[in-house]
Amino acid sequence: MKFEKEIEVKGHLIDSMILTRIFDKIMDLKGDFEVLEFTIGKEKKAPSYARLLIRGKSKEHLEQLSEEVYREGAVSVAVENVVLEKAQRDMVMPDNFYSSTNNPTFIHKDKWVKVGNMMMDKCIVYDPVKKRAYCKPIRDVKKGDLIVVGEKGVRISPPERPREGVDVFQFMSSSSSSERPTQHIARKVARDIYDTKSKKGKIVVVGGPAIVHTGAAESLAKLIKMGYIDGLLAGNALAVHDIEYALMGTSLGMYVKDGTLAVRGHRNHMQTVNEVFKAGSISNMVKKGVLKKGIMYECVKNNIPYVLAGSLRDDGPIPDCITDVVEAQRRHREILKGADMVLMLCTMLHSIAVGNMLPSNVKVVAVDISQPVVTKLLDRGTWQAIGIVSDVGAFLPMIVNHLEQAK
Amino acid sequence: MKFEKEIEVKGHLIDSMILTRIFDKIMDLKGDFEVLEFTIGKEKKAPSYARLLIRGKSKEHLEQLSEEVYREGAVSVAVENVVLEKAQRDMVMPDNFYSSTNNPTFIHKDKWVKVGNMMMDKCIVYDPVKKRAYCKPIRDVKKGDLIVVGEKGVRISPPERPREGVDVFQFMSSSSSSERPTQHIARKVARDIYDTKSKKGKIVVVGGPAIVHTGAAESLAKLIKMGYIDGLLAGNALAVHDIEYALMGTSLGMYVKDGTLAVRGHRNHMQTVNEVFKAGSISNMVKKGVLKKGIMYECVKNNIPYVLAGSLRDDGPIPDCITDVVEAQRRHREILKGADMVLMLCTMLHSIAVGNMLPSNVKVVAVDISQPVVTKLLDRGTWQAIGIVSDVGAFLPMIVNHLEQAK
Amino acid sequence: MKFEKEIEVKGHLIDSMILTRIFDKIMDLKGDFEVLEFTIGKEKKAPSYARLLIRGKSKEHLEQLSEEVYREGAVSVAVENVVLEKAQRDMVMPDNFYSSTNNPTFIHKDKWVKVGNMMMDKCIVYDPVKKRAYCKPIRDVKKGDLIVVGEKGVRISPPERPREGVDVFQFMSSSSSSERPTQHIARKVARDIYDTKSKKGKIVVVGGPAIVHTGAAESLAKLIKMGYIDGLLAGNALAVHDIEYALMGTSLGMYVKDGTLAVRGHRNHMQTVNEVFKAGSISNMVKKGVLKKGIMYECVKNNIPYVLAGSLRDDGPIPDCITDVVEAQRRHREILKGADMVLMLCTMLHSIAVGNMLPSNVKVVAVDISQPVVTKLLDRGTWQAIGIVSDVGAFLPMIVNHLEQAK
Amino acid sequence: MKFEKEIEVKGHLIDSMILTRIFDKIMDLKGDFEVLEFTIGKEKKAPSYARLLIRGKSKEHLEQLSEEVYREGAVSVAVENVVLEKAQRDMVMPDNFYSSTNNPTFIHKDKWVKVGNMMMDKCIVYDPVKKRAYCKPIRDVKKGDLIVVGEKGVRISPPERPREGVDVFQFMSSSSSSERPTQHIARKVARDIYDTKSKKGKIVVVGGPAIVHTGAAESLAKLIKMGYIDGLLAGNALAVHDIEYALMGTSLGMYVKDGTLAVRGHRNHMQTVNEVFKAGSISNMVKKGVLKKGIMYECVKNNIPYVLAGSLRDDGPIPDCITDVVEAQRRHREILKGADMVLMLCTMLHSIAVGNMLPSNVKVVAVDISQPVVTKLLDRGTWQAIGIVSDVGAFLPMIVNHLEQAK
Repeated sequence: MKFEKEIEVKGHLIDSMILTRIFDKIMDLKGDFEVLEFTIGKEKKAPSYARLLIRGKSKEHLEQLSEEVYREGAVSVAVENVVLEKAQRDMVMPDNFYSSTNNPTFIHKDKWVKVGNMMMDKCIVYDPVKKRAYCKPIRDVKKGDLIVVGEKGVRISPPERPREGVDVFQFMSSSSSSERPTQHIARKVARDIYDTKSKKGKIVVVGGPAIVHTGAAESLAKLIKMGYIDGLLAGNALAVHDIEYALMGTSLGMYVKDGTLAVRGHRNHMQTVNEVFKAGSISNMVKKGVLKKGIMYECVKNNIPYVLAGSLRDDGPIPDCITDVVEAQRRHREILKGADMVLMLCTMLHSIAVGNMLPSNVKVVAVDISQPVVTKLLDRGTWQAIGIVSDVGAFLPMIVNHLEQAK
Repeated sequence: MKFEKEIEVKGHLIDSMILTRIFDKIMDLKGDFEVLEFTIGKEKKAPSYARLLIRGKSKEHLEQLSEEVYREGAVSVAVENVVLEKAQRDMVMPDNFYSSTNNPTFIHKDKWVKVGNMMMDKCIVYDPVKKRAYCKPIRDVKKGDLIVVGEKGVRISPPERPREGVDVFQFMSSSSSSERPTQHIARKVARDIYDTKSKKGKIVVVGGPAIVHTGAAESLAKLIKMGYIDGLLAGNALAVHDIEYALMGTSLGMYVKDGTLAVRGHRNHMQTVNEVFKAGSISNMVKKGVLKKGIMYECVKNNIPYVLAGSLRDDGPIPDCITDVVEAQRRHREILKGADMVLMLCTMLHSIAVGNMLPSNVKVVAVDISQPVVTKLLDRGTWQAIGIVSDVGAFLPMIVNHLEQAK
Repeated sequence: MKFEKEIEVKGHLIDSMILTRIFDKIMDLKGDFEVLEFTIGKEKKAPSYARLLIRGKSKEHLEQLSEEVYREGAVSVAVENVVLEKAQRDMVMPDNFYSSTNNPTFIHKDKWVKVGNMMMDKCIVYDPVKKRAYCKPIRDVKKGDLIVVGEKGVRISPPERPREGVDVFQFMSSSSSSERPTQHIARKVARDIYDTKSKKGKIVVVGGPAIVHTGAAESLAKLIKMGYIDGLLAGNALAVHDIEYALMGTSLGMYVKDGTLAVRGHRNHMQTVNEVFKAGSISNMVKKGVLKKGIMYECVKNNIPYVLAGSLRDDGPIPDCITDVVEAQRRHREILKGADMVLMLCTMLHSIAVGNMLPSNVKVVAVDISQPVVTKLLDRGTWQAIGIVSDVGAFLPMIVNHLEQAK
Repeated sequence: MKFEKEIEVKGHLIDSMILTRIFDKIMDLKGDFEVLEFTIGKEKKAPSYARLLIRGKSKEHLEQLSEEVYREGAVSVAVENVVLEKAQRDMVMPDNFYSSTNNPTFIHKDKWVKVGNMMMDKCIVYDPVKKRAYCKPIRDVKKGDLIVVGEKGVRISPPERPREGVDVFQFMSSSSSSERPTQHIARKVARDIYDTKSKKGKIVVVGGPAIVHTGAAESLAKLIKMGYIDGLLAGNALAVHDIEYALMGTSLGMYVKDGTLAVRGHRNHMQTVNEVFKAGSISNMVKKGVLKKGIMYECVKNNIPYVLAGSLRDDGPIPDCITDVVEAQRRHREILKGADMVLMLCTMLHSIAVGNMLPSNVKVVAVDISQPVVTKLLDRGTWQAIGIVSDVGAFLPMIVNHLEQAK
């Protein structure tokens, strides 16, 4: 008996290495294939088409092969509907649940339905009434949810590599490296920010406390004031360091202006935490006129939404900080909805977290002084990110300069 | 009018650089001093004694100077009581609250009282009924708590540098470096673990998921099984990766045994999360016989307490994970109580968090492949930590080998 | 007028992404193409064939396009001979010289001639008498040498990605990462070493002084003694540190055995240098019985050729060290001739240097604790290298253990 | 019988931790000591004085103790002359040669003689005719040279820590860190450069090719043109990359201006090498009008001496490159003579090499994006270096901006 199936795939099969990956997967699994039909795009923008017969050693093996090639954008020639299974309990998915990628995804339920709220490593729930599908984190799964199982009837639209245009995403190609012309890259990133805003795009910043330590707090504050930023995702530390700097002029107990050490400078951090508790919240500090500048001030003044997510190492944490991480994730996802560009500035934890929440068509620029951090982010699946190994304390002021001149 | 005060300080003033630091602080603040008396320990273990007159330019300046030198272990010759002030509201400390270090600390309230529950960056609360003092995190401060303000009447016992003995702490001296004889260091660390347990000491492990990725999960599981570990502090990721490896043999979707890729390996991580939700908890998985080996299994089997602290990037997180970070901090502090030694294995976030919770006399060994991570931990005040720049996937098996032979 | 040319290419065009790269190059240069013929390998090991018409905007543009696609393995359908031009002076190549890659290369001079002594970034010289071609470094170019210019008549055989087999090269895929199961990788590398020697293969080690500092000197010495190593390429520092350790038991002035500090330990390094000058050479030290163990000792005893290349930071350097870098490069190339596998152990400078001297079909395993170092090596064109981010002080002993058991 | 000796030491014993280190050394060696006299500087700038009796277990042990404490600046109370021994052969020092530090050093030969040409890890030669002493590298030792042996009669003046002033050296304190306000540090470094030149000081740059890759070549060229730089120490790679950029506008084959890839960009590097061979030298290229801008151009135009030291990984190397490393070291030492400040820009190899050639009173500023590199430099004994973890592509333009405004 034979275990074989016809699959087909369309698109820039060569440019975007789709066919390469399909062949790879089959060979990795020791499967077999035959190319039944192949028409290559005659010209550079024309899509190609391939029809393959894939062959497994058993029914199970064939299914494994199918599952893997479906992940690369192939579909069965014989169109199949997705299989749906009910969640038996809250927060429990069926065993064979389909685990989502961050690529645009469609499920076939009589017709092709686009999956909404696309995120990595989630399940897909189908709403039979509205005939719509969307991604759901496991903790939001409710008993009775209709959840896609297996890979049948699921089609992914693998990302086409951008081939035209001259933005930083084309410029940098795939890899991160510290050996790049920094000033030029800064110009390109500034241009992308400018263009995104010109088209009414949404830009979200994810930032770590090193923004303040490296002296880039004023630059970020200015970016917000200038109207380039539509949301800020950070932790307790960024807020506390920013407010310490705004209130006392110190960062890690040292006066940034002249480099002298503050008396009992180690206290400034905790005193800042206490000040926020006294006022009750950051926005109260602004209202009372206690907080008059800085990143958080500009967020409050300009009604830019921010989420401060708690972490185990927080001092305080201050009242604004969302101490429950599941709730913080929810709030992050809200702010990220509709984002066109995300700037990740020196924070590995938050960057990876946010990376997982983004569909693959959102532009991501990650700046960190440590190459392994940048590499790790890209490895975790946020492959569309541009990694820039630079010093944010020098890089961010460059961006601001360019944007000021652009005005 | 003169602004001056006599202070005195005892101990290994030279060896432990206490006098150096006092001179430094005064000069940094542009203060003045005169050495009134100085008797040096004639022999190497004899303590020294110094009496200084410090002089400021104003009352305030003198106070600043005092505050700084008190931090280094000096006290006013004229013994003064601490000043206590009531907290006006829950979670709000008085403005001039004393911010604690991680060194042994005493407050003078008619007599010298040792401060309990010593931690960095907390306030000190005095209980007038029990005549006891202890550290309190800001979120635990209650209205009416009597909180130490200013630096008057506070005495710190700065750490003496260990000069005798041949444990890893002497061996490594201060700095972290990748240029050290790894096998020898492993032997020393194993010896320290062995000796600590021989004296009924308490050892806590703080670990990140790289333990599993680098293939050291079995080594850590064995350490637990052998009875060397008294507590495990980790995050959702360590648990999920460990259980994935135990259930499916994969780590990041690759079979560790033979290096082949698992089919739909990316799913294994999420499937593991789902399995824990299905069982309801890790201990249920063990009870039901689903989970039969690994780090978490050995914790459950051997009744080793563990805390899994949530973070923003968690998948799930699984039910065992404490999603509220303030609660997670509380649980961490409980497990760390009475610890003699803490092993920090490839996790920057958790290591810094735990470092802040430890008094300075707890031995800390931190292993990470990245030197900046190790440096950052030491910079954050956990200066008693020994930083080892090595590959935990190779280092931990060495430790286990030595301990097996030691039996 | 039209500027177009037919080219063809054969091989695993899809698997090995050859076609992808050709399309990319044409589009990067804003050229145009049409696929005239494409037959895909019906089964997984069958080669594919493509015939394209490429079109430029001018004669020059077409030439640029041709040059780029030739680099990817394509050839003109109308076979053309290479163009040769005479070097006008010693050490000066013709302006339009062909700059070599590290891939197997052929030039068409009436027939296809394989280029010998393949290395990156060299020119290709044709010997009309022997009808042979080989790579030559610029400093070896002699007046009158017939040097290939332009890209016409040059065919490259781009590397096929290994798809079968289970050695470490398949196991690791492309990227370097610290998140890999160390023990398992060590087993795979040991297996590769064993298999290479079983087939009478040649293994060369390139090593830095961190081998000694991290305590792996004995492991490398043992590898040599066991007969696994056929050549050692290193610098002055490795030799001096190894000999210091052999003579005095110290590394960087610390006794490795018990971690105590040697008296005037800083001197040991310079004293070692003096000892070598006194004896006249390392082999004299062995003959006189002064040097009795270690890496260099085993090289001398087992007649393993070694080259110590000088560098600007050398102390001494010792008489064995070749202080002229051009001469050192020559000697390196001699030792590397015919190598099947090269182990690069914690030395960026030497690793990149050696990487440039190797054809792309030599297996390279690079071990370093720093990920950026490993990444940089791969970026520099030694893309066939497997990068292992680990601690050589722990990794090398593992390898030796496996090889001892294999015997 | 007793083995004891009186030693004395003067200076800022407490501030500069001299006494701490002396006590440490004695205890490390399990020696004993008694403080016979100790007068502390009553005021902050007054020097202290200590007289100690040190006691060993044997004559040898006492000698070991003496040797170690002499290294820290102590001298025997009974003044002793140095012991001199003749070199028996060229390039061979006497067995017990004194190995120099980089601190100001004096030898007592009837009177105290200052040692000239101070460098680390060299021997000290005494000229009985001129009654002068100086450091000599081992390869320069001639038969008959009178070389200091043992530690007797040698006095070191350990560096006093700078306590006043507000330059970057005070500002940064000891450690390197990426968490510093970059813009502020740049301002401080610019100020130091400006002040050094105002006092007719000598500034030498040591630079790696990443200056060009990160786009900072124009900034360095401008610094040279503005007259701030008195010497350039680099390798073949910096020169070739700089010239490639000047001739073709590319760096690593990419046009810096617009980020597009050059055709056959990989060739540009080798073509540049060929161009230099064709012209015969860099200065010939400038004379012929071929080279018209960039770092090397400005050096030639402004008669700034430069040394290009060869390394094993060099392509070419170009004719200007000194391929013999011993000769290159000599030329480096010449250029460094009298330097007041050395800027080390992204080159580990050259930085460590140059660090070893500098006396400890030369200001060193090292900029690199990798913290381990900066740490390693400091660990290697160039402890006076200020390590700045930043991106030179962003940092150097900042420096130039400040200096342009300072004019």
